[in-house]
Amino acid sequence: MKFICEKNKLVEAISIVQKAVTGKSPMQILEGIYIEAFDNTLTLIGSDIDLSIETKIEAEILEPGKIVIDAKLFGEIIRKLPNYDIEIETFENNSIKISCQKSVFTLMHMNADDFPNLPTVDENIIFTVPQGILKNMIKGTSFAIAQDETRPILTGILFEIKDKVLNLVALDGYRLALRNEFLDTEKTISAVIPGKTLNEVSKILEENEETVNINFTTNHILFNLGDTKVISRLLEGEFIKYNSIIPQEHNLEVTVNKQELLNCIDRASLMAKEGNSNLIKLDIQEDVMVITSNSQLGKVREEVNIKLQGEPLQIAFNSKYLIDVLKIMDNEEILMEFSSSVSPCVVKNKDLSNCKYLVLPVRLVK
Amino acid sequence: MKFICEKNKLVEAISIVQKAVTGKSPMQILEGIYIEAFDNTLTLIGSDIDLSIETKIEAEILEPGKIVIDAKLFGEIIRKLPNYDIEIETFENNSIKISCQKSVFTLMHMNADDFPNLPTVDENIIFTVPQGILKNMIKGTSFAIAQDETRPILTGILFEIKDKVLNLVALDGYRLALRNEFLDTEKTISAVIPGKTLNEVSKILEENEETVNINFTTNHILFNLGDTKVISRLLEGEFIKYNSIIPQEHNLEVTVNKQELLNCIDRASLMAKEGNSNLIKLDIQEDVMVITSNSQLGKVREEVNIKLQGEPLQIAFNSKYLIDVLKIMDNEEILMEFSSSVSPCVVKNKDLSNCKYLVLPVRLVK
Repeated sequence: MKFICEKNKLVEAISIVQKAVTGKSPMQILEGIYIEAFDNTLTLIGSDIDLSIETKIEAEILEPGKIVIDAKLFGEIIRKLPNYDIEIETFENNSIKISCQKSVFTLMHMNADDFPNLPTVDENIIFTVPQGILKNMIKGTSFAIAQDETRPILTGILFEIKDKVLNLVALDGYRLALRNEFLDTEKTISAVIPGKTLNEVSKILEENEETVNINFTTNHILFNLGDTKVISRLLEGEFIKYNSIIPQEHNLEVTVNKQELLNCIDRASLMAKEGNSNLIKLDIQEDVMVITSNSQLGKVREEVNIKLQGEPLQIAFNSKYLIDVLKIMDNEEILMEFSSSVSPCVVKNKDLSNCKYLVLPVRLVK
Repeated sequence: MKFICEKNKLVEAISIVQKAVTGKSPMQILEGIYIEAFDNTLTLIGSDIDLSIETKIEAEILEPGKIVIDAKLFGEIIRKLPNYDIEIETFENNSIKISCQKSVFTLMHMNADDFPNLPTVDENIIFTVPQGILKNMIKGTSFAIAQDETRPILTGILFEIKDKVLNLVALDGYRLALRNEFLDTEKTISAVIPGKTLNEVSKILEENEETVNINFTTNHILFNLGDTKVISRLLEGEFIKYNSIIPQEHNLEVTVNKQELLNCIDRASLMAKEGNSNLIKLDIQEDVMVITSNSQLGKVREEVNIKLQGEPLQIAFNSKYLIDVLKIMDNEEILMEFSSSVSPCVVKNKDLSNCKYLVLPVRLVK
């Protein structure tokens, strides 16, 4: 194998595929990046089996071939080389020479035949979304995936297409996050993608209008971004019927400025940190919401202007769960819907119906 | 005690004095900030005994008084309050109320009488330096202080005034850093300041021409920046006679571009990380320096253009020590002076004689 390529292109390709390389793996070959030089194209692949990322860049191929090389060391070397063309060539004894200007590195490589094959995903495009929108939908739900493995299905995000709407849903035992976007398709899909790998996918997606094509098989999802393909395995099992959890009715509705509420809860949580599980109390009155917290550290009282439709209510929350939700919402005005002090609170944007968040209250012992 | 002051001023004052509060202290009172309200001035003090920082800000004092309050919690609360005037008032039962707009916090405070007194330093100015210069001198030497405590005096930086020159010197067993600036004074001083506290001092110093007044006693040094005073204890004992360590003569002199050399050594060190103590070899030839390293990971060859006066030489170093030195030097062209493969290398700026660095070579077994 022998090829010449631009430093910057190679650095970018390595950064992309490295997102699937988890470092110390029980299979040493998975600590490496697969590199194939063929037909003026360099194909790089990183994989931890659950997640595989492939990307292609242009290169001058002088002799086709393929190798696997330690991802961390190779990445560090290429990043530190001067900003010129890099020449890479294999030699006998499984060694490669990396040359750039007056720098010459000689390293051992691994055998490309030992690298696992990518899962085959039939590329009949199932649907297409702008990258920026998908990136935002992942960001807007992934914080709510379960952190513990007691119910593995909840460590994933539900990808659901139904009635021309794409829904992304994540939930643990305490809160639920739902993001939805219109999608012009007749297809119906329901699949659960590991949250961890979806976070890596969102890092590769750009904040723009360019599209990503998405395909499914029984076991895998493929995100095709043109030069880059991301393949993730799906989680097995049924996701929770989330629609039955979200209350369809409410007794009172609060309209409030998101940032003001977030600031108040953020400050109140300072007093809620010790001992009592981030407990804050909301006293919802006619025109204001009073937020209080008490602990060994001291006490705090915050007040925020609201518009209330319905009867006043007192309700308590773990401040962390409210803060998580408010932090990732981007509308200025939000709606909070309550039914009673022991029923979940639903948080939405006031003007835009592209998300729904649900947070369980903390039941206070009277 | 009762006062009103601007949020931003209070935040800045807390940030300054908090640099002396080390967190968990065997004396609980030292986890707090001392606050005294008197005569339209708020005085804040943080201390860990070794280092004390006092700063003053303007405030509207409605009732004079003094308290000590937990630094971490108080800092977090004040930082998160809205950007308006803050009112702080003490009540019975050792509690204080912090109010700002519609936010009200109630906290316990500690007894100001339990807070240790600042060491008395007679403020006859001994000398004056622009803050930016002192900040730079500290940055340019503190990386070379000893990390282990086997010789406590080497965990400090020597502050020496002699022959109208201020010298800052740090050294461990492997390298030495000397920074010097002209100082128009007849005084003679030699004191060793703990490196850790001097690093905190350098964070408070601004990158500008404003001066800092410096005073010494037998046991303490006082940096007076106007509104802020920093008092550090001195280390006991004699510093090493550093002048006898720095070679006065050399057999060969290398002129080289600093950034190019740094890049080469930085890359070469990638291959030097495993097993063999960052060992890199320098082959100094007529017009080039060839840098090589070999390890189980592979091998590397780098080449940088130089001007050589003297005979060629081969010498080996721990790359980390050379990188540390090159990173903090700011001249484009530097000089490296060598005598033999077992004598220290002296590194200087080509045009500016305000620093001198010394790095011991690694003796290779032939």
